[in-house]
Amino acid sequence: MKIEKAKSYGFCFGVRRAVEIAENSQNAVTLGPLIHNPLEIQRLAENYNVKYVNNIDEIDENIKRVIVRTHGIPKDKLQKLKEKNVEVIDATCPFVKKPQEIVEEMSKQGYDIVIFGDKNHPEIKGVMSYAVHDRVYVVLTPDELKDKRLREKIATVAQTTRKLSDYLKITNYLIENYKEVRVFNTICNATFENQDAVRELSKRADIMIIVGGKNSSNTKQLYNIAKENCESYLIESEDELNPEWFKNKKLCGISAGASTPEWLVEKIISKIKEMT
Amino acid sequence: MKIEKAKSYGFCFGVRRAVEIAENSQNAVTLGPLIHNPLEIQRLAENYNVKYVNNIDEIDENIKRVIVRTHGIPKDKLQKLKEKNVEVIDATCPFVKKPQEIVEEMSKQGYDIVIFGDKNHPEIKGVMSYAVHDRVYVVLTPDELKDKRLREKIATVAQTTRKLSDYLKITNYLIENYKEVRVFNTICNATFENQDAVRELSKRADIMIIVGGKNSSNTKQLYNIAKENCESYLIESEDELNPEWFKNKKLCGISAGASTPEWLVEKIISKIKEMT
Repeated sequence: MKIEKAKSYGFCFGVRRAVEIAENSQNAVTLGPLIHNPLEIQRLAENYNVKYVNNIDEIDENIKRVIVRTHGIPKDKLQKLKEKNVEVIDATCPFVKKPQEIVEEMSKQGYDIVIFGDKNHPEIKGVMSYAVHDRVYVVLTPDELKDKRLREKIATVAQTTRKLSDYLKITNYLIENYKEVRVFNTICNATFENQDAVRELSKRADIMIIVGGKNSSNTKQLYNIAKENCESYLIESEDELNPEWFKNKKLCGISAGASTPEWLVEKIISKIKEMT
Repeated sequence: MKIEKAKSYGFCFGVRRAVEIAENSQNAVTLGPLIHNPLEIQRLAENYNVKYVNNIDEIDENIKRVIVRTHGIPKDKLQKLKEKNVEVIDATCPFVKKPQEIVEEMSKQGYDIVIFGDKNHPEIKGVMSYAVHDRVYVVLTPDELKDKRLREKIATVAQTTRKLSDYLKITNYLIENYKEVRVFNTICNATFENQDAVRELSKRADIMIIVGGKNSSNTKQLYNIAKENCESYLIESEDELNPEWFKNKKLCGISAGASTPEWLVEKIISKIKEMT
């Protein structure tokens, strides 16, 4: 049986970069878990002594270096960190830094700010905190803007993981109703690249193994796409693999969620090879 | 029979303003006919001695004042006019001045310029001439942009008489493909207000009289909307009215194309009253 990895899978650029930063920052702590994968969190703790704290108040004098994770953090929290007399290592994804900078600059220029995203998501909490005024509207649909009267000049950014077609619904509404709309396309394609790659590979494969957390929404999304096209399994570790699955199969496709480290993917591939 | 005028009809704000400017500028010439209505052109010539020339070279030393019409003119022609030692009276519609200013300012700031409109229309020839660089793309559909690679920062304006839904097709394409798209909604609603008003009135009326040039596209549009809902006639002057039309009618609706002066509408209403 042939095994083929999807053209794009697993860590996005920002997460890969953050993990490298953590590996190069022994004895630091991260503010919140670095990624949504307990095995990878454990590996960073065991191999590099990089653990995590849940909030700034847990940082005591024994901690010298603090890593800000890919989502970024609100401006006032960053300030509070800097006052803690620790070295701040910023692993905010550059694609998240960008909307933070845009919101800061555009609000300074007097634009009202519309953010397409979830106001409870850490990324958006960070991005919105960079506005220098309070005319900031965080919405998921144009309906949420209908009872509001914004000023004539509006700048807009999107949460990096959102779908473009949903963002266009917001921008269309704004263009229809306001004189100037400055649209920054801050959507990152990594999530969709993984999905496209699964779609392509699962159409050719006889079986697909998707590696990732069973409660990770992006992993489930990959699994749902795969099983439309061939027999598919979502697993968290190699222990779940069953040799029966691979009988009479010619091509096994592999993909992994955005928080799944490469070493775990490799471990699973080795195990499949042993079995078949 | 009751006679009712549509809530909005005839001259738009810019044309009304231009005619007033002409009436206050006796002995001036306009560069090109001021509006597409021969009766109104004749009235301005007879009552105010405001005639027109077809191009700048026709302006001789006897002409002291030149009126620029609502569409505006290219920057170099305006310059040439100023060098002629004549007083330039600018009747460019303020809603057309706006995209001219935007294109000038945005091109100075280094933005590539996308103009949604017809490159052969006088308004667009004027607007595009205000760019200070040559990275200006005049298009009617997104397809015309597909073989072009623009820079990352794009500013876009629309011809004032275009439909918003068509403009959004362009802006959606740009947002999908470029990092920053600065959208200026320069569409003027006057044309659509006349259409909406005809739609509303023709649903209640027994007969609609539309006044305007038989080759005027906006007038024909009004006529087409009206005749969907009731018996309708498109006429250029009161001579075409036929008393038979009004027999057994209770409500007669009146509308007029964007180049039809109010005095002509009133003349037609008087004639209908005489007939019925």
